[in-house]
Amino acid sequence: MPNEDRIERALRASLAPSLQPGHPPKLAAAMQHAVFPGGARIRPQLTLAVARACGEDDAQLTDGVAAAIELLHCASLVHDDLPCFDAAETRRGRPSVHRAFGERLAVLAGDALIVAAFEVLGRTTRRHLSRLPVLLRTVSQGVGMPLGIVAGQAWECEPQLSLADYQQAKTGALFAAATMAGAQAAGADGEPWRALGERLGQTYQVADDIRDVMLDAQVLGKPGGQDVARDRPSSARALGLEGAMAEFQRLVQATLLSVPVCPGASQLRQIIRHEADRLVPQRLTAQVAALAALA
Amino acid sequence: MPNEDRIERALRASLAPSLQPGHPPKLAAAMQHAVFPGGARIRPQLTLAVARACGEDDAQLTDGVAAAIELLHCASLVHDDLPCFDAAETRRGRPSVHRAFGERLAVLAGDALIVAAFEVLGRTTRRHLSRLPVLLRTVSQGVGMPLGIVAGQAWECEPQLSLADYQQAKTGALFAAATMAGAQAAGADGEPWRALGERLGQTYQVADDIRDVMLDAQVLGKPGGQDVARDRPSSARALGLEGAMAEFQRLVQATLLSVPVCPGASQLRQIIRHEADRLVPQRLTAQVAALAALA
Repeated sequence: MPNEDRIERALRASLAPSLQPGHPPKLAAAMQHAVFPGGARIRPQLTLAVARACGEDDAQLTDGVAAAIELLHCASLVHDDLPCFDAAETRRGRPSVHRAFGERLAVLAGDALIVAAFEVLGRTTRRHLSRLPVLLRTVSQGVGMPLGIVAGQAWECEPQLSLADYQQAKTGALFAAATMAGAQAAGADGEPWRALGERLGQTYQVADDIRDVMLDAQVLGKPGGQDVARDRPSSARALGLEGAMAEFQRLVQATLLSVPVCPGASQLRQIIRHEADRLVPQRLTAQVAALAALA
Repeated sequence: MPNEDRIERALRASLAPSLQPGHPPKLAAAMQHAVFPGGARIRPQLTLAVARACGEDDAQLTDGVAAAIELLHCASLVHDDLPCFDAAETRRGRPSVHRAFGERLAVLAGDALIVAAFEVLGRTTRRHLSRLPVLLRTVSQGVGMPLGIVAGQAWECEPQLSLADYQQAKTGALFAAATMAGAQAAGADGEPWRALGERLGQTYQVADDIRDVMLDAQVLGKPGGQDVARDRPSSARALGLEGAMAEFQRLVQATLLSVPVCPGASQLRQIIRHEADRLVPQRLTAQVAALAALA
């Protein structure tokens, strides 16, 4: 089964309990809206790719871990879009959850997705129970305090912050959880896979900062120009657009070099190159160069 | 060690990771504000009492489970107090988290407390790993979809609801998780303890509805009269004050009868009677009777 299908199937299964008899219909619909249709699903793709590279032996567990990681990503988007944060009207080209369902259901949908992520971890570790504690730790650290996604969003509320720490918490931490948990789902040590996830997270964050400046809402599927509008730290603001582009290219190379030696290394590097091209296509690089020449 | 001290110590330990180097200080402070000083800690008290009644053999695990249940309760209060829900200015006699730290940090503190609850479950099951999956399920079902706390809050967003289903989800589900997880932490079957938790949750909810009408903000530690102000379903509104009081007395008796036969049964019944007196003191019962005589 292609990875895309595995991920969608795992996500549907992870939300199946929320549709069982007795559920409040609007919250169930808000959760579905937050998760389907998805974006690039890059984090669960990574989990699957790393698990395979580590000799995957329990597909049900890998799928559960991949779904948990993506549910937590979706939860963070739903809360990040709330009026008190980004007040984003759109996400993935559709109304954001708070626009479609109201603020209360958006808060609750995020909460319910976090709970569903941990529930699916508990449900899919039956055959390899000994892997559950380390998976819980890895996933918790990717999203919780002191260094996960919530910490990253909380740095936006502090008067002073380090751009690197902020980006590591807001993006790097869940990418690291995605790679490490992929290894752990296959019974391997997660630690050698941390650097790959962190580099990839940095790469992704810099790309996101460039795209926020360069692309319009139709391509982004969400409002553009938000970093300046919300006075939010950004690589493009700190380094300038040309500097951010150079940083992006440097990070792509660093990411490729952090793939541990393993049978699946070349497939992983292929995924990384493909994702880099998707995030910052050639024409965008050319546009930035042209803008720099004009300046 | 008295149960009160055990619970406070377990809660401090469960939040220790959030204070490790690199944490954003305001979010860490908001989490502490949400958890300390606490209310009656009735849910973790129940967990401890049931674990003891079931022959507790792993105090570290019981403490972790009790802390997880209380963290999830605190998280639900923080999100319930948000401007888009109850817009409560006070909680436990102090500013609510969103009043003290702002709305963004209140959303994030709730999220971080949910994650911390699952993290502590994973961390404290080392000696009895086989109990972890069922504990994860019980705790998830107490707070998640389709029948846990988030579902209860979501019913407030539906045009039609059943008062019983709403109260069961909003309050009963976490009380049931508290009793069942107490048994499971001791290696016992949780199912025989479900009815006790559910009855106690119903009792507590009816008491809360009565208190919302009868007590002022100073005694409640939070604004009173909210059910009418927010057009929220309530036993006092559905049954009248006298009817709600009769229902409360009926539920206390039903709760006492649902304590399973076990060595700790009499201690458990004592806790229940004590809690019932704390929630609806004699003078409140007398006041309601006096009001009814006037009508």
